[in-house]
Amino acid sequence: MTRDLTVTEVRLTPILVADPPLLNTQGVHQPYTPRLIVEVVTADGVTGLGETYGDTKYLELARPLADRLTGRQITDVNALFGLDIAVDASRVDGAVDVGGLRGVQTADKLRLSVLSAFEVACLDALGKALGLPVHALLGGKVRDSVEYSAYLFYKWAAHPEGVPGEKDDWGAALDPAGVVEQARRFKELHGFTSFKLKGGVFPPEQEIAAVRALAEAFPGHPLRLDPNGAWSVETSLRVAGELGDLLEYLEDPALGTPAMAEVAARTDVPLATNMCVTTFAEIAEAFTKGAVQVVLSDHHYWGGLRNTRQLAAICSAFGVGVSMHSNTHLGISLAAMTQVAATVPDLHHACDSHYPWQSEDVLTERLVFDGGRIAVSDAPGLGVELDRDELARLHRRWTEDDGALRDRDDAAAMRVAEPDWVTPTMPRW
Amino acid sequence: MTRDLTVTEVRLTPILVADPPLLNTQGVHQPYTPRLIVEVVTADGVTGLGETYGDTKYLELARPLADRLTGRQITDVNALFGLDIAVDASRVDGAVDVGGLRGVQTADKLRLSVLSAFEVACLDALGKALGLPVHALLGGKVRDSVEYSAYLFYKWAAHPEGVPGEKDDWGAALDPAGVVEQARRFKELHGFTSFKLKGGVFPPEQEIAAVRALAEAFPGHPLRLDPNGAWSVETSLRVAGELGDLLEYLEDPALGTPAMAEVAARTDVPLATNMCVTTFAEIAEAFTKGAVQVVLSDHHYWGGLRNTRQLAAICSAFGVGVSMHSNTHLGISLAAMTQVAATVPDLHHACDSHYPWQSEDVLTERLVFDGGRIAVSDAPGLGVELDRDELARLHRRWTEDDGALRDRDDAAAMRVAEPDWVTPTMPRW
Repeated sequence: MTRDLTVTEVRLTPILVADPPLLNTQGVHQPYTPRLIVEVVTADGVTGLGETYGDTKYLELARPLADRLTGRQITDVNALFGLDIAVDASRVDGAVDVGGLRGVQTADKLRLSVLSAFEVACLDALGKALGLPVHALLGGKVRDSVEYSAYLFYKWAAHPEGVPGEKDDWGAALDPAGVVEQARRFKELHGFTSFKLKGGVFPPEQEIAAVRALAEAFPGHPLRLDPNGAWSVETSLRVAGELGDLLEYLEDPALGTPAMAEVAARTDVPLATNMCVTTFAEIAEAFTKGAVQVVLSDHHYWGGLRNTRQLAAICSAFGVGVSMHSNTHLGISLAAMTQVAATVPDLHHACDSHYPWQSEDVLTERLVFDGGRIAVSDAPGLGVELDRDELARLHRRWTEDDGALRDRDDAAAMRVAEPDWVTPTMPRW
Repeated sequence: MTRDLTVTEVRLTPILVADPPLLNTQGVHQPYTPRLIVEVVTADGVTGLGETYGDTKYLELARPLADRLTGRQITDVNALFGLDIAVDASRVDGAVDVGGLRGVQTADKLRLSVLSAFEVACLDALGKALGLPVHALLGGKVRDSVEYSAYLFYKWAAHPEGVPGEKDDWGAALDPAGVVEQARRFKELHGFTSFKLKGGVFPPEQEIAAVRALAEAFPGHPLRLDPNGAWSVETSLRVAGELGDLLEYLEDPALGTPAMAEVAARTDVPLATNMCVTTFAEIAEAFTKGAVQVVLSDHHYWGGLRNTRQLAAICSAFGVGVSMHSNTHLGISLAAMTQVAATVPDLHHACDSHYPWQSEDVLTERLVFDGGRIAVSDAPGLGVELDRDELARLHRRWTEDDGALRDRDDAAAMRVAEPDWVTPTMPRW
């Protein structure tokens, strides 16, 4: 073979992508959210794509890791994880990311979140170089399409006045009727047949009413509610008791493994998490205590696609379900999620994806949901192509930002509309 | 790409390979042991190699699985594990294999043991087709060589008179001096610096004396003792108490997870296993109970190299060590073990291998231990080549066998020398 799989260049492009005014317990999404687009280029000129969080602390780590990747083979990924790259632990250890929405924050997790984009880019490049889809590099798909869930949000009709931002035509959703209307449109547009509501925004009674309204409007459709740990154990149990069989699972009702374990011990409603189990180090305690019944993997947190498969294997061995978490992301990550999800045997829950909320993307062609599912691409690599003009435009937005939006801060975004807003103390209810 | 990775043929060749008269708690190794050599041939004429157990029940399952592999892509391996291939459960469920030496026997494990050879052969073929070593297909090596431990056995000088079999020049090893002499020769020949003694053959006192003799002869060398579950909890604790710090770990002192957990709770000597945790289904109980501190993976049992990596990830998440088990095997499997071991970050114990005891192999060139280590091949695939003449010769031996040796039975082999031998009731001591 004469192919040269050496990495000759790693291009890092921070961008800001439009995000609607979606509400969560911490505040509201900024009008633009930072993402980092990674391009790994081989000596043969093949380019692989990856994507991850774009906040400053990720960018700071991405440069030294990119330098260490350069000169390696794109097949030489495992060793990247053992590289001794210093992370300023004072910036991360003990802190929680975006008000806790991304779970615990550690130096190791920060490193994995950056490496995940490199791993995906290397797999994409390798697949392209060999003419193989990424799933084939992971042992092959076990399904031809991956099911996603509609990701419903309470939202404002628009970002606060005076704030730069893109307009959307979804209108407000601030009560049960608004949530059902949003769900109906999601179903019409993309064919979703399961629904997740991001909760923790209004007092539990209102969110219970919204779930009941969804159940009435869409009988037999799996429903999920995710207050991002905003509830006490007692509130969690009360909601579980009230919604009972309507829920496929309750996601992160309470904060932290001990509280989740207490809830789990006292309800039959399965608990899912992307907050108390977001690192390999958190698994043993949570599984041993029976704190969670479904882990929602985020391949960014967990360090890429091979690690996601390993997480799935751990879950499977412990009888814990697995599915996928999503934060604001673009098509590169959705393609990566779909490729790896296609290879996981025990995937019995529709995956989450914010993607339908993202009006902008850096791909020449958007990924399409059909019947709530994304077809698993058999094209080389991830099967997606970079739109360089769009990448440049979104990068320009990032360079022109004065720094206010380069680090996602939902509480700060909320203060624009409500100056007195303070990050809620948890449990909020 | 114009490569055609379709499987056009799967060749299955059962063979009998020479095995010295090595003793264990069940009896003695047969003079010849059955193995199955798998060749997966692609449309482009690339051939990948795999190897697994060759007993009748494996062979019976291999044919239908081979038929199902034919026509697939060699990258389409994950889906093989979900195939609905009937296994005659009455032959396996509830039974233990080779008197328990291979742990629990289930239909699923039998299936995985056969599939492992197909997975390895597909990876070998893919690597050869792409010009990449197998480790690169698994994310890349994290070390350049893999450490192995000398596998010491009590042994007779020769197989019983009148039994056909190959001669060896190792002589008998039936007491501490004999064991030390064997270890010395192993070290001289292959450079091993850690030693494992297969125990459960003599009353514990004699085996304790042998380990003490090894410790005296090789100060500072990690030592292990493996009675294959022959001891009661009390005996296990007595041996642990007596050998204490001399042992790197004690391997399967008692049979089954509850007994192992009881031993583990009462000693600081780490316990290793390749008997009570040999399937994914056995992990949760053992890890939750803290029954084992090191799992010795056997990629045959666990279903191949990707599954071995998943097992390693599970162990890592639970703070359990991982290393590798070995049964009588040839160079194809040793190459596969080395490739996957090269990719596992948390591999902190030398792997076991019977290979030095195998005077015969089906490779054109034997793998070589240097300083107790095997260099990780960067050649395409597994980096080994089949010796077709030798394969034919060992297959002829299998075809000419009247069936007496086609299913390994250490107790039956022992009865040739000791007609009154019965499979010991466990715990034996």
